Amino acid sequence: MKSYLEMTKEERSAEFESIKAQFEHLKTLKLSLDMSRGKPGADDLDLSNEMLKMPNETTGFVGEDGVDTRNYGLLDGIKEAKRLFAEILEMPEETIIAGGNSSLTMMFDTIAQGMIKGLGDKPWIFDEKRKFLCPAPGYDRHFAITEYFGFELITIPVDENGPDMDMVEEYVKDSSVKGIWCVPKYSNPNGTTYSDEVVRRFANLKPAAKDFHIMWDNAYVVHDLKDDGDKLLNLYDECLKAGSEDMPIFFASTSKVTLPGAGIACMAGSPKTLAMIKERMKFQVIGPDKVNQLRHTAFLPDLKAVKEQMRKHAEIIRPKFEAVLNEFDATLNGLDIAKWTKPNGGYFISLNVMEGCAKRVGELCKELGLVLTKVGATYPYGKDPHNSNIRIAPTYPSAEDINTAAKVLSVAVRYAALEKLI
Amino acid sequence: MKSYLEMTKEERSAEFESIKAQFEHLKTLKLSLDMSRGKPGADDLDLSNEMLKMPNETTGFVGEDGVDTRNYGLLDGIKEAKRLFAEILEMPEETIIAGGNSSLTMMFDTIAQGMIKGLGDKPWIFDEKRKFLCPAPGYDRHFAITEYFGFELITIPVDENGPDMDMVEEYVKDSSVKGIWCVPKYSNPNGTTYSDEVVRRFANLKPAAKDFHIMWDNAYVVHDLKDDGDKLLNLYDECLKAGSEDMPIFFASTSKVTLPGAGIACMAGSPKTLAMIKERMKFQVIGPDKVNQLRHTAFLPDLKAVKEQMRKHAEIIRPKFEAVLNEFDATLNGLDIAKWTKPNGGYFISLNVMEGCAKRVGELCKELGLVLTKVGATYPYGKDPHNSNIRIAPTYPSAEDINTAAKVLSVAVRYAALEKLI
Repeated sequence: MKSYLEMTKEERSAEFESIKAQFEHLKTLKLSLDMSRGKPGADDLDLSNEMLKMPNETTGFVGEDGVDTRNYGLLDGIKEAKRLFAEILEMPEETIIAGGNSSLTMMFDTIAQGMIKGLGDKPWIFDEKRKFLCPAPGYDRHFAITEYFGFELITIPVDENGPDMDMVEEYVKDSSVKGIWCVPKYSNPNGTTYSDEVVRRFANLKPAAKDFHIMWDNAYVVHDLKDDGDKLLNLYDECLKAGSEDMPIFFASTSKVTLPGAGIACMAGSPKTLAMIKERMKFQVIGPDKVNQLRHTAFLPDLKAVKEQMRKHAEIIRPKFEAVLNEFDATLNGLDIAKWTKPNGGYFISLNVMEGCAKRVGELCKELGLVLTKVGATYPYGKDPHNSNIRIAPTYPSAEDINTAAKVLSVAVRYAALEKLI
Repeated sequence: MKSYLEMTKEERSAEFESIKAQFEHLKTLKLSLDMSRGKPGADDLDLSNEMLKMPNETTGFVGEDGVDTRNYGLLDGIKEAKRLFAEILEMPEETIIAGGNSSLTMMFDTIAQGMIKGLGDKPWIFDEKRKFLCPAPGYDRHFAITEYFGFELITIPVDENGPDMDMVEEYVKDSSVKGIWCVPKYSNPNGTTYSDEVVRRFANLKPAAKDFHIMWDNAYVVHDLKDDGDKLLNLYDECLKAGSEDMPIFFASTSKVTLPGAGIACMAGSPKTLAMIKERMKFQVIGPDKVNQLRHTAFLPDLKAVKEQMRKHAEIIRPKFEAVLNEFDATLNGLDIAKWTKPNGGYFISLNVMEGCAKRVGELCKELGLVLTKVGATYPYGKDPHNSNIRIAPTYPSAEDINTAAKVLSVAVRYAALEKLI
């Protein structure tokens, strides 16, 4: 296809008329489609229905700890759940705390603890200035936690290898920089996986703040779309080599393995880190929902079972990703108005439209009945400096709807670009 | 029986020899009994086994909100759960937030919010002095939360009507007093229910601190041991009359209705209070475990079902309370060395032994293989000024073990008293 940039005025006008016609046609369909959040579809959820039949009188309610999961106790979760997460994160079992249904809550509570009690130094709330590094585009809910707690958010650009480590290494020389948010595998929204070099440079960071922490949210650790998924170097191992094992705090969950509304989450870290976290937790809770942990481990006893479950998810999700990517390839390639990622896993496609056009694309999609993630959300303070990035979550629409959703997106991207060029 | 206080020296010595013999006999039994926490027994837990079969493909996973409970969403819980808690607390549905498995976590998070963000005024962490009122004997985990956050804990004596309201009214004139912990019905550990007058005086408090809150933990709201249970006046209604509805924050859970390890919890308050709480929650979590909420409401759709469930619990628990009370009546009555409560509901018997003897009773019980709540725990800082109060949790031992446990207690109480008197 001919680049929009190279078209003559007349060619552009003609193209715009054609796109407008497609736009008007799509409008008549009165669509109601949602690509706003990384939500699994109903087919994905059904993959865990068998899990909801456990535990029961036949399987029993007492876990390996010898504790009846239905009763109080076990602050850091049941042994089976800790072992499962240890396998998933490739970390020792004793580094794991298995928790409730939300890893986001574990992250929020960790930062809250840093504010009130400190995470290895004075409480952050008494610091006049506190800063947090935010690789962007990234996950809006991460950024929002640190914004809520009054951190200055510093945008770190990312490329296909991960965050710009030159910048990270420079910024951590400032002792008011207290941490960095990372989604190291199938990054939200880029879908990229940090390179070995980036992971090693993380392990070898020498931050000025002794309570600097890497918030390593391994949300998509087992979320391959293809058999030959990305490989992420093990940060904990690298930190042990570098003697920096107290620096990272790891998070994961089964939200997109089993059920987002009723999964189990974990955090992990060095013995020193875990002791610090449990010192708060023992005042906050008697124990997590251990029945739900046992329900999970009865259904997914080991990493092999998890991988099999993820293979089934991939069969459902991969065609949805392909529908969007095929539409983009067919209709946007060569126009010089958009770039997009083709991830091997995770939950998102990151689309960069012509600079200054992202918000307009969001409006146009809305007009056609397709809700996108709030444009700009992938940047600190919800402000994309280039007004260009759109996070696409292809998983929630049904297999039938996804082609239409992709068409809507493509038409809106071309519409906005032509509007700007004309 | 003859009062130990009125016995002659010889009579006491003879009695002590007899008690020592009983003590030595009990020791040979090598018991292993636990009355340390308010934990239900296995029989109680089994009452909810049917619940664990729901929801399923037959019942469906979509709640009245039209949301698939298995997926993300619904920050403040599903409609069915809010309605159930509204019925239980006798408060409007729109005052309810239905949450995860721990009301303790909701309380901790509320106080944490007060520390960092404030609860209607400046963040408490910047106050040089902050104080919290602690009716005692009371619940150790309440006191511990405010101790963790650096509050000065002020002991408020309680009698059969509830906290000493003269003292409460006096203390709240101090603007550094930020709140009070209350278990208003079948109080932990006394088992008493606040009188109507006490509830009205709470509603009409005029605290100097505009961010003073009553932490109204209605943990035992439906936990009657007998058909004619205690009646607690509705604090929210009284506050509405007094124009003080922003002052109380209500808590409850199904921990001792269904399963302590896997129940659902709620908090409740005025529109202003809920807005303030949700302003934090929206950064902390996407939604609670909604499948577990639906599981609960499928099993217990309304207050009638809850009351029927509690009647079944009472059939299991009441004989355990009676076993302890009968043993005390038979062996301690008239000795002038102990007093105990005879609650109509809740989870505890509060035993006051001879001043200065409670710790010794704890040691003696331990020697016989019976673990009690850490003696002193029912007071702020874990320090009972009279070293007299012991919280007895009769629910966890089996029906077979409870008689032995009661004997151990009685022997230990008499042993410690005689030791002191001789």
